[in-house]
Amino acid sequence: MASSLEKASTALHIINTVQQMEETIEQIRDKKSPVHRKEDDLPFEPKVSQEGIAARRLFLLQKKNQEYPYLMDNKGFEDYDSLNGNVENYIGMIRVPTGVIGPLRITGSSAQGDFYVPLATSEGALVASYHRGAKACYLAGGATSICLMEGVQRSPVFKFENIADLGLFVAWILPQVDKFKEIVKETSRFAKLMDVKIQIEGNHLIVTFEYHTGDAAGQNMVTICTDAICRYIIEKCPTKPKLWFIEGNYSGDKKATALSFTNVRGKKVTSEIVLAEEIVHKVLKTTPELMAEYWRSSTVGIIQSGAIGAHGHYANGLAALFLATGQDVACVAEAATGITRMEMNKDGSLYASVTLPNLVVGTVGGGTHLPTQRECLEMMDCYGQGKARKFAEICGAVVLAGELSIAAALSAGHFTQAHQKFGRKK
Amino acid sequence: MASSLEKASTALHIINTVQQMEETIEQIRDKKSPVHRKEDDLPFEPKVSQEGIAARRLFLLQKKNQEYPYLMDNKGFEDYDSLNGNVENYIGMIRVPTGVIGPLRITGSSAQGDFYVPLATSEGALVASYHRGAKACYLAGGATSICLMEGVQRSPVFKFENIADLGLFVAWILPQVDKFKEIVKETSRFAKLMDVKIQIEGNHLIVTFEYHTGDAAGQNMVTICTDAICRYIIEKCPTKPKLWFIEGNYSGDKKATALSFTNVRGKKVTSEIVLAEEIVHKVLKTTPELMAEYWRSSTVGIIQSGAIGAHGHYANGLAALFLATGQDVACVAEAATGITRMEMNKDGSLYASVTLPNLVVGTVGGGTHLPTQRECLEMMDCYGQGKARKFAEICGAVVLAGELSIAAALSAGHFTQAHQKFGRKK
Amino acid sequence: MASSLEKASTALHIINTVQQMEETIEQIRDKKSPVHRKEDDLPFEPKVSQEGIAARRLFLLQKKNQEYPYLMDNKGFEDYDSLNGNVENYIGMIRVPTGVIGPLRITGSSAQGDFYVPLATSEGALVASYHRGAKACYLAGGATSICLMEGVQRSPVFKFENIADLGLFVAWILPQVDKFKEIVKETSRFAKLMDVKIQIEGNHLIVTFEYHTGDAAGQNMVTICTDAICRYIIEKCPTKPKLWFIEGNYSGDKKATALSFTNVRGKKVTSEIVLAEEIVHKVLKTTPELMAEYWRSSTVGIIQSGAIGAHGHYANGLAALFLATGQDVACVAEAATGITRMEMNKDGSLYASVTLPNLVVGTVGGGTHLPTQRECLEMMDCYGQGKARKFAEICGAVVLAGELSIAAALSAGHFTQAHQKFGRKK
Amino acid sequence: MASSLEKASTALHIINTVQQMEETIEQIRDKKSPVHRKEDDLPFEPKVSQEGIAARRLFLLQKKNQEYPYLMDNKGFEDYDSLNGNVENYIGMIRVPTGVIGPLRITGSSAQGDFYVPLATSEGALVASYHRGAKACYLAGGATSICLMEGVQRSPVFKFENIADLGLFVAWILPQVDKFKEIVKETSRFAKLMDVKIQIEGNHLIVTFEYHTGDAAGQNMVTICTDAICRYIIEKCPTKPKLWFIEGNYSGDKKATALSFTNVRGKKVTSEIVLAEEIVHKVLKTTPELMAEYWRSSTVGIIQSGAIGAHGHYANGLAALFLATGQDVACVAEAATGITRMEMNKDGSLYASVTLPNLVVGTVGGGTHLPTQRECLEMMDCYGQGKARKFAEICGAVVLAGELSIAAALSAGHFTQAHQKFGRKK
Repeated sequence: MASSLEKASTALHIINTVQQMEETIEQIRDKKSPVHRKEDDLPFEPKVSQEGIAARRLFLLQKKNQEYPYLMDNKGFEDYDSLNGNVENYIGMIRVPTGVIGPLRITGSSAQGDFYVPLATSEGALVASYHRGAKACYLAGGATSICLMEGVQRSPVFKFENIADLGLFVAWILPQVDKFKEIVKETSRFAKLMDVKIQIEGNHLIVTFEYHTGDAAGQNMVTICTDAICRYIIEKCPTKPKLWFIEGNYSGDKKATALSFTNVRGKKVTSEIVLAEEIVHKVLKTTPELMAEYWRSSTVGIIQSGAIGAHGHYANGLAALFLATGQDVACVAEAATGITRMEMNKDGSLYASVTLPNLVVGTVGGGTHLPTQRECLEMMDCYGQGKARKFAEICGAVVLAGELSIAAALSAGHFTQAHQKFGRKK
Repeated sequence: MASSLEKASTALHIINTVQQMEETIEQIRDKKSPVHRKEDDLPFEPKVSQEGIAARRLFLLQKKNQEYPYLMDNKGFEDYDSLNGNVENYIGMIRVPTGVIGPLRITGSSAQGDFYVPLATSEGALVASYHRGAKACYLAGGATSICLMEGVQRSPVFKFENIADLGLFVAWILPQVDKFKEIVKETSRFAKLMDVKIQIEGNHLIVTFEYHTGDAAGQNMVTICTDAICRYIIEKCPTKPKLWFIEGNYSGDKKATALSFTNVRGKKVTSEIVLAEEIVHKVLKTTPELMAEYWRSSTVGIIQSGAIGAHGHYANGLAALFLATGQDVACVAEAATGITRMEMNKDGSLYASVTLPNLVVGTVGGGTHLPTQRECLEMMDCYGQGKARKFAEICGAVVLAGELSIAAALSAGHFTQAHQKFGRKK
Repeated sequence: MASSLEKASTALHIINTVQQMEETIEQIRDKKSPVHRKEDDLPFEPKVSQEGIAARRLFLLQKKNQEYPYLMDNKGFEDYDSLNGNVENYIGMIRVPTGVIGPLRITGSSAQGDFYVPLATSEGALVASYHRGAKACYLAGGATSICLMEGVQRSPVFKFENIADLGLFVAWILPQVDKFKEIVKETSRFAKLMDVKIQIEGNHLIVTFEYHTGDAAGQNMVTICTDAICRYIIEKCPTKPKLWFIEGNYSGDKKATALSFTNVRGKKVTSEIVLAEEIVHKVLKTTPELMAEYWRSSTVGIIQSGAIGAHGHYANGLAALFLATGQDVACVAEAATGITRMEMNKDGSLYASVTLPNLVVGTVGGGTHLPTQRECLEMMDCYGQGKARKFAEICGAVVLAGELSIAAALSAGHFTQAHQKFGRKK
Repeated sequence: MASSLEKASTALHIINTVQQMEETIEQIRDKKSPVHRKEDDLPFEPKVSQEGIAARRLFLLQKKNQEYPYLMDNKGFEDYDSLNGNVENYIGMIRVPTGVIGPLRITGSSAQGDFYVPLATSEGALVASYHRGAKACYLAGGATSICLMEGVQRSPVFKFENIADLGLFVAWILPQVDKFKEIVKETSRFAKLMDVKIQIEGNHLIVTFEYHTGDAAGQNMVTICTDAICRYIIEKCPTKPKLWFIEGNYSGDKKATALSFTNVRGKKVTSEIVLAEEIVHKVLKTTPELMAEYWRSSTVGIIQSGAIGAHGHYANGLAALFLATGQDVACVAEAATGITRMEMNKDGSLYASVTLPNLVVGTVGGGTHLPTQRECLEMMDCYGQGKARKFAEICGAVVLAGELSIAAALSAGHFTQAHQKFGRKK
């Protein structure tokens, strides 16, 4: 059975990583404002105009020497076969406007450097707001963003005649973890069984199988592997359940759960920044003190609403980024969960952090290969194998930028104006 | 001050409506399987092929005599100006594969008849699964789906020196509700202030302003109106708060909250169906008994996960439908909350219902006017004024179809196969 | 139907009250440290000794000219008949050690003055800790404690053939609220029906009847009244439910619920204090800054634990006070819910507040008449009619004292020592 | 570091235990109604009368040849010194009426046989209701009740300059778990460190230390041990936190948390029973079908209330039993959390189970040595070393009896009558 040591070492992982990268540790500790270089400035333009589009296209081309014909030129697409596995009863493609923010500077364990991040949305003010937050982070030397843990679960439930039978069943399966790992190895090239946890409620037994899924979000993969394990168990175990179901609705798939804070679902990422008072003032048009006040009042507000976690609007940035990059957008339901914290340091600067325990994301599989989505991933060099943790750290930093910007707007009383300026007229 | 009588009458509303529509009451009570007409059968095809696309296009054309050039033919679009209010820093459009399900027969207070519903997704098996659920509902005479209540909130927080000052402030504002209604009338053509609620926590006062927002989702509208009210209060009230913020993070904007069950956010919809054992067997490949067993076991599972509400996968259908129709996809975080219930009736049939208290949707504003999104709304005759409640009832019925299909697959042990068949190969 | 105006006016109530009591408003606003009078000092003694007992007995006698023979002298009791209604299968009395804290100075709408509060517990350090908090409040001029709202609910659930029948039923009952009020009047001398709310979930209808219950906690009273209403409905309403139950497990009886924050169950009380830095330093042995730091860190901690609300240890003080005063101790499950907030003011003082939405308490009925419990209530002049709101405000202030003391101990690193000093040796 | 294997083996423990006790496995599987022996029948009497008291005293004396002078005869008590560690500022003892229920037959891993259980309460109908549930269980051959896991936590929080420092700190402490175990061994005779878990949120690190605490509830013990560990860490670790607090409010001490379902706090117990239709009919005056209906409707009701878990009234039985036995009654806030499940089997019988993950109980320490409390523990042979798991299993069975009785009363419409009959007249 996978020991919690492995999981601890999952936690250790970044720390070791970071230790190895001595430069990064120093980077995190001694962040300085970057020497400001004109050529890094994405031409910002709230209005949509042909000139602006051209300017940003040129800018991105200069940055990465890459073209985006599907995204930018609506290049036609007729490789229908490649859509199999993504949709049934296909009738066409809906299109969603996409803006870009950046440079978003990140010091992470996997994501390092300046990123231009595509966000697909139809909600006015969203892109402008995240862009403003990214700018504040950039001027402060960049956000630290660390992928702490990962794991995707399936939680089959087995129902027995009584607790005695349940006990015999548990006693049979627990020593079989190595066999289960073998089954997983035979079933999937990418999935790796990491832990097996049991949860007993009367004659109900929930067994949670937790996996690493490589660079895929991995929900299908873990379903198939868990199914294989369960079929083996049902066949071999002398004590038979009366009933069993491949998912007992305990894994948190597609819904926010309190469970996620003690666990992880997908990737767990934490991101932080320290903003000097001057940056808060110039870029965010408010003060660290007001932002800390807002954080306290709004945290007490959200607690009274019976929410899970406490944050501002994770769903906005995540939905836009998930959409642009071919993630499973329905996972916003679980991913938009976490803790935002803001406080004023003694030197008058602002400390802010976000922690997201449920980032179900991938850089292979799902919709990542779709033409426009792939281009969006490539814009951040996040397409394909070996990029999932990097992408998760970018998600964390984007969310941090968004939390800074909305808390600033709300604390300064500018929230309404932003929506009047950028939102649709009604 | 808006009385709770008004809200009760909101609740009464559908009942009255239903009473007036005697035909509908009888329809709900005496649902019969429709005489099956070949020409209503949407040509289902899991594989994406040119022939299938053509067949469905022809079918939809015959049904409604409408073309969908942006959605189906990737018609170019250069009216950039129309994107203002939807996005900033625009660089192009991402595209998302869209399938269609139906006929989904609905007996609602606003939605009546058979609907073909577009779902935009990159997740294999989703469209097929919802289509199967829709078919079961159709054969059972259609789902009942009722929009019970509506309301969108802003919850500014005011902070005082002490509770005494807070008290004086409350005593001043409560008698001003008529004035606030006037301010709202002057500020927005569509918003209507329905209720004002207070919530005291130490020297913090949260005032929740609840609005009807016509056929728009309305979040910007209520922000602007609440801002106008607050500025009036701050100017006129002799007792001044030390601080105030336009949103105290209590309204549930963009996050699942337990609060929503006692309240509403957007539209509250409940939908139900009774499926004869034969339909469950033929279409859903399982039995009512197994589905009821699954419901019980999975409900107990989700309770242990610390989720809000209890359901299967609302987020899947809602994200796909929101995306296709230009809703704010980030609202999936709050909309994918609710209660699914399934039980076996004494006659062996299955009763199933879904209840969603948080459907933040609109048929005007937001992304509804975007070319492909508008076409998708038009496919259901849901574009424009006077359609929001109808659209909400369709959302409810779609979610019900999805809950039936996934519970059936899980109860019968077919969940994995469906994902192996329709999902991407990994 | 009871309008929300009435409830608002419940909210208004204290404010009006406070307005009337101009002196109190000024008292709250301009609290000053009391001139310290030696004779108010309860002789504090952590060790239990005959001398200490005698000293405190004398002190309390001098304060109130009242004897406590059952509590202090274990006076025998043989009026078994008076126990009917409190217990069945009676075999005797368990005894719980009781300590006293104070003076706890309170400026409330119903509670005014200095109180000596009995706490029954077997947990070492509890009384000492609450006493310390009370002392800090006393030196700061006393806690403000306001009973904001009240209401006790029963929530019967009715189940129908389908939503159409449910609708007809709702349409029939909603106009009958005046009749229901009449029924209540005939059924109970004390209960007053205040509001009727409906909650629809598929073919389930929950109707919440909310009452004022005078000075009794009132759970039995509201059950009996609701039963009478339901029997009337079932008899008269032409549309019959398939099933109904007097409680749909929605009212929050005996369990913590998120619902309570938007509602009230029993009494809702908020209490606040401002402690000068000097008091924090001298009495609580820490600093306002550290307490504010602790509040922030611990609030983020509790959010991650998936609790309802955010506080330190309400249950400790409430269980001890409920026990001493004949409250339903099982209600600690719901009463120990709320929000504690602490922050440092610009002048270096500490602001702290507690808000408890669920104080199910009474000063008549239940165990309040039992010999020792009655004496404990009398010690605070809280026995009998007209005292429930006063007692609720004392509960709030006691809880505030306890939150201050534990946060101080934890922030200063003295928590462990206190338990080593006062706790049982193990 | 303690591996999750150990915890799994904690789970395995009962199973192994049960396996060893082959008789018990068979007992659980093949429960039969006991041959009914007149002399086991506790003389039940709702009214309190001298004759009834005498009859029950005689009965209990015959059963166990034990006297209860403090409980039954109000024997005086003047060993004040023994109260040190239980209370400060002592002024006397409050007294709470105590009834007895039984025989409660239990087949557990530690509790085996028939028990007469004392319940201290002032709430009419409580003892009668639990007694009725116990009778139903007895006639059905007894409840199965298993203590599945145990663990008590302290969760200090450490705050760092930034995530880099936090990482270095974690990297230093994780390899030290053996040293921490040593420190614990030196600090306490009873505590055993079982697991160390980390939780990162920005620059906050919560380290959860989980212990076994022998037969004591153990909260003081784990505080003292954790303090010793932390002081060692702070002294030795080269990376220093800016701040740290011995409890980050994450351990669930004194409050209901969703976290508890995935964890344990105190003891986790599950108890189940199958009641033949005849028993439900004769003893509980209802039908298995109605109880299953009630369970479903009420579970959906409680979900909408935003509660944690789903049950009827655990707090009632737990508060009464905790009070009678010298437990920390404030722990009702966390202990009254769990899942009740009821369903009708195909043979028409009723299956019911309760699962309580948070039973913070002990049979040494706390108030267990107090005169009346000790007698109550002795009545169940639960006083002293080696009895805590047994007592926890009794708690589970008592709670099960109470859930059966209340669900029966509610399903049959007798709930109100019971309260009219047994409750205080108002």
